Amino acid sequence: MAVFFGAAALLLLSVLVTSQWVMGVKLESDRAREISGYIKRGAQAFLRAEYRTILPWTAVLFLILTWLIGYAAGIAFALGALFSIGAGFIGMQIATSSNARTTEAARKSAGAALLVAFSAGSVMGMTVVAFGLVGLGLVAFAFGGFKSAASIMSSFSLGASFVALFARVGGGIYTKAADVGADLVGKIEANIPEDDPRNPAVIADNVGDNVGDVAGMGADLYESYVGSIVAAILLAVAGNSELGLNFTLWTVGVGALAGWLAIILVRFLSAANRMDPANVFRTGSLFVTATAVLLISAVGYLLKAPLGFVVATVGGMIVGIAVGFITDYYTMGKPVKEIAKASQTGTATNILSGMATAMESTFLPVLLVGLATIVAYWSAGLFGIALAGVGMLSTLAFSLSVDAYGPVADNAGGIAEMAHFPHEVRGVTDTLDALGNTTAAMGKGFAIASAALTALALFAAFKSAVGLTVLDVTDPKVLAGMMVGASAPFLFSSVVINAVSRTAFAMVLEVRRQFKEIPGLLSGQAVADYDACISISTVHALRNMVAPALLALIVPVVSYFVLGTAGVGGVLIGQTVSGFLLAVFMANAGGAWDNAKKLIESGFAGGKGSEAHRAAVIGDTVGDPLKDTAGPSINILMKLSTVVSLILIPIFVRMGLPVLMNLLAK
Amino acid sequence: MAVFFGAAALLLLSVLVTSQWVMGVKLESDRAREISGYIKRGAQAFLRAEYRTILPWTAVLFLILTWLIGYAAGIAFALGALFSIGAGFIGMQIATSSNARTTEAARKSAGAALLVAFSAGSVMGMTVVAFGLVGLGLVAFAFGGFKSAASIMSSFSLGASFVALFARVGGGIYTKAADVGADLVGKIEANIPEDDPRNPAVIADNVGDNVGDVAGMGADLYESYVGSIVAAILLAVAGNSELGLNFTLWTVGVGALAGWLAIILVRFLSAANRMDPANVFRTGSLFVTATAVLLISAVGYLLKAPLGFVVATVGGMIVGIAVGFITDYYTMGKPVKEIAKASQTGTATNILSGMATAMESTFLPVLLVGLATIVAYWSAGLFGIALAGVGMLSTLAFSLSVDAYGPVADNAGGIAEMAHFPHEVRGVTDTLDALGNTTAAMGKGFAIASAALTALALFAAFKSAVGLTVLDVTDPKVLAGMMVGASAPFLFSSVVINAVSRTAFAMVLEVRRQFKEIPGLLSGQAVADYDACISISTVHALRNMVAPALLALIVPVVSYFVLGTAGVGGVLIGQTVSGFLLAVFMANAGGAWDNAKKLIESGFAGGKGSEAHRAAVIGDTVGDPLKDTAGPSINILMKLSTVVSLILIPIFVRMGLPVLMNLLAK
Repeated sequence: MAVFFGAAALLLLSVLVTSQWVMGVKLESDRAREISGYIKRGAQAFLRAEYRTILPWTAVLFLILTWLIGYAAGIAFALGALFSIGAGFIGMQIATSSNARTTEAARKSAGAALLVAFSAGSVMGMTVVAFGLVGLGLVAFAFGGFKSAASIMSSFSLGASFVALFARVGGGIYTKAADVGADLVGKIEANIPEDDPRNPAVIADNVGDNVGDVAGMGADLYESYVGSIVAAILLAVAGNSELGLNFTLWTVGVGALAGWLAIILVRFLSAANRMDPANVFRTGSLFVTATAVLLISAVGYLLKAPLGFVVATVGGMIVGIAVGFITDYYTMGKPVKEIAKASQTGTATNILSGMATAMESTFLPVLLVGLATIVAYWSAGLFGIALAGVGMLSTLAFSLSVDAYGPVADNAGGIAEMAHFPHEVRGVTDTLDALGNTTAAMGKGFAIASAALTALALFAAFKSAVGLTVLDVTDPKVLAGMMVGASAPFLFSSVVINAVSRTAFAMVLEVRRQFKEIPGLLSGQAVADYDACISISTVHALRNMVAPALLALIVPVVSYFVLGTAGVGGVLIGQTVSGFLLAVFMANAGGAWDNAKKLIESGFAGGKGSEAHRAAVIGDTVGDPLKDTAGPSINILMKLSTVVSLILIPIFVRMGLPVLMNLLAK
Repeated sequence: MAVFFGAAALLLLSVLVTSQWVMGVKLESDRAREISGYIKRGAQAFLRAEYRTILPWTAVLFLILTWLIGYAAGIAFALGALFSIGAGFIGMQIATSSNARTTEAARKSAGAALLVAFSAGSVMGMTVVAFGLVGLGLVAFAFGGFKSAASIMSSFSLGASFVALFARVGGGIYTKAADVGADLVGKIEANIPEDDPRNPAVIADNVGDNVGDVAGMGADLYESYVGSIVAAILLAVAGNSELGLNFTLWTVGVGALAGWLAIILVRFLSAANRMDPANVFRTGSLFVTATAVLLISAVGYLLKAPLGFVVATVGGMIVGIAVGFITDYYTMGKPVKEIAKASQTGTATNILSGMATAMESTFLPVLLVGLATIVAYWSAGLFGIALAGVGMLSTLAFSLSVDAYGPVADNAGGIAEMAHFPHEVRGVTDTLDALGNTTAAMGKGFAIASAALTALALFAAFKSAVGLTVLDVTDPKVLAGMMVGASAPFLFSSVVINAVSRTAFAMVLEVRRQFKEIPGLLSGQAVADYDACISISTVHALRNMVAPALLALIVPVVSYFVLGTAGVGGVLIGQTVSGFLLAVFMANAGGAWDNAKKLIESGFAGGKGSEAHRAAVIGDTVGDPLKDTAGPSINILMKLSTVVSLILIPIFVRMGLPVLMNLLAK
């Protein structure tokens, strides 16, 4: 516990200092302050509404858990939910407070702007990790130490997971509906540029970046972080390995430390302003990995842990980084050029080329995660798989800071445009935004890989909790479960994509209406009704996030009552494997289309306004809900279903609840 | 054997009589004869070239099998390949001989045209089944009866599978490249109608229907048919069940009989010309199902087989039909209307809506096949799963006849257009063509479901052959294998889609070149160089079909050397589950986009020439390679990898070939 609280204290202190520093950056432009205020208020309003929608469902689950397991589980669940909400809110607050400040700093230098944006991102990164540590530490403290609180901790993880699903799905629908709506009418029909203040959906679009990419991404990785740690603790305790438990706790602690050091380093390098931003991040990544490997090896040595522990942990870490680079290749490299070329023969070839690229891009990440699983299992059994997850996520404080920096830079560019900053300022923010796109793509790959590995680790914990020694695929219940589970991410994505389409459609109608009915809007003499657009995104996002969330909860429960425990195992494995593939497919398709469009806009294959560009814009629009709503939501689906099963199925088994298949077999 | 040869004799006799009758239909229009001749020669030339390309690879596999197992296996393999080639060739010959005759008959009545087209289709249907029975019967005869020849039969199945992959991939690339090329330049750039003789790619397009949808589909289902029977025989023999073997053989026999009766009925009803064509097929389907259920029950009763055998068999049959209807709903029903509506807001929403529909459409088929598996297993163990496959495919003679009718009707419409037949004739062929699209969509669903079930049945045989009692998903080798296997269909589809894109691109350039360089072509005074387009489709299709085919062979072999037997099991299961999902997704996406376009062309959502129509045409173009190349090719991938493993892995195990993972673990 001391490790957790110690690391958390260090991070929280840094969060305070950093926030103070960011808020102290002077904001001279009134116009920028005003726009930033709109965005902030919109984001706050959405998150509040989102949390209000989540509350009753949280209460229901709290009651169910309390009834089934006891107060401890209920409280842990509520804590998990609350900490996740808190982390998302704080991250979003600082992000929306620092966008205009980044624009302002961009007047001075790229380094200065990077410093502000990254500092804001690091508040998110450090808060998520600190809240993870504090939350788990509190549960351990309240219920008699990590060992005796282990099973209660899965309820904490469930709370985090539950909020994350809403945040990802709701935030994803919000952001993409606003984005698509703003683009379809603004860019294509009214021919006004991106981020133009005359576009009524422009504020909603910028709000979306924050609620989707900051709060949503934060909740997602908070959940992965907590989930991987909980799985490792559970398996260590189940295997009665004091050493395993200690190794896990210390690894988490030193990982947080390494992340913190890298954050300091990057801020130092940014302030020095002598390296280009991309190199700053590269240096930071190298540093954090080297430091973490060193510290984790030291932990292994000092605890006299078997070498296998270190191998499994470091293996997971390396795979996480490798998957990021593969994502980078498929969404930034040669394949993107091919897609841009294919756009020259029209939209159909653009779409087909993007789909083919994305399909191909699933292979290596899957292979690597498969490899990591084998290596981890060899090195330390099922516990090793959980360690690989812990390793991959150990330096989350740093990697999430880099992720969260992106939307701040993106917003800063929007504000530069809307507040009519000089051209050079927009140039600086564009460079930072482009870098943000790279880090976002890599971050997405990392988030998926970590979700898959966390789901596998939680699955291992599930298996040990229900006492399954083998899970035989050729048992038809397992096989049928696997097939149904594998189709769940498809069904889920379908629901989510349709929700985005419907919301975007409503947004299109509203923007068109305003252009038509507000006199002087297009000539810049009247102000758009931003709130109407914000309200459309908000209402639709909230309304549409409940069904998918319930799907994730219901599938494993129904599977139990129909197929029994082994069937649930099949469902979870099928869902994880197919979810992983589909998430990579959707994320990379969207990323590649996005960048093919940007590549063309930079003058390639005919440049802006060409036939190829029109095709690429459509490809980008298709990819938006795939990469930013459906894809990331699958991350949560995998983890949530597994943690629900981990908690509920052992109880069902103990209560001897009937299973249809067994009844029929009699 | 007597059952097989008896049923085969009946079917072959019918094939002769029917072919004779079809060829006897008088063909009065010289122009129609000329065009039909072009198509026929093009198709023949392609198939010959295709078979020439396959030959050396067949020889290599023949040698490998002979070396590893012995002459018997080599010969069985060669026989399987030859029979598959023969069935494809005969079906294609009759189909290309009857397209113009169907047009001619359409002068008289819809019934008369239906009779010709369906008769031609039935030649394919009956040939495939008869060749399946004769081929397996011969192997049994040559190697001492079904019981002792059982293991040799899997080599026969491999031969069929091997040819099928080339036929599906090669035919699929050919047909879609020609189709897309003809449409992109002809319809969109030059603004001439579909099937216009001025379009240089028009003959290649019509050839494509025959080599893809007739020869390719035939080879695909030939393989499923043979594969499911072989799996059932293998499992019956492995379980030492004389009764199981007899039940399988008799079920196959009476299924063929039921199919034959239904074919006769449909021809009778067509000739009577008093029912509309859709109703004729519906009556035929009802009849064939009822008859087959009755006859199979009788077989069960007379052989005193356990009720479970009949339940498993009939269960498979019902699921096959149900999946057809589900496909029909998603590619013809309400969702298509939604896609057409979504097209009104542009291409992006058309694409997204189609993708969402297709994702949703995976759920029920998977659920039903899962259910069939469970029911079959309960009723008769692993053997029951094979019986479900046999049941689903037992009446193939009829269902394949209906499938193969479609391309004939499609060609007939093309010829009516090109040979300037009166407007009413085109009206009749359009009705038949529309019906053909429905049956094609249902047939595709059926083909996928039967491929998945056949792969599962072959998997069960694999499991018994290598002596795996359980296949534990939580063994990391199995899990890693499953992940890699699950990504194989994605990788495979990517390769195939890219091949279609490249070929279509070459076709576009050639058609553009001809329009530009041949004076008087667009005004109808000069004749297009059809052969140049045919040659492009041919050369590219042949060049690009080898790599995917090898992928299907190599993946299980490499998996063995890395992961060992259990790992191969994981690969196969992962591949089957994800392949099933992806195949359904791609087939239904393509089908739904196609019909959304047709719906708009019929006047819905703005009608022809509207914004929505333009969007829908692009959606259709995107869907083409998905539904007609990549999707169907996955059917073969699933079966081929499984049958390769079934044959090779037990030998590798016996030879004690080294496995990397085991070496490392030491």
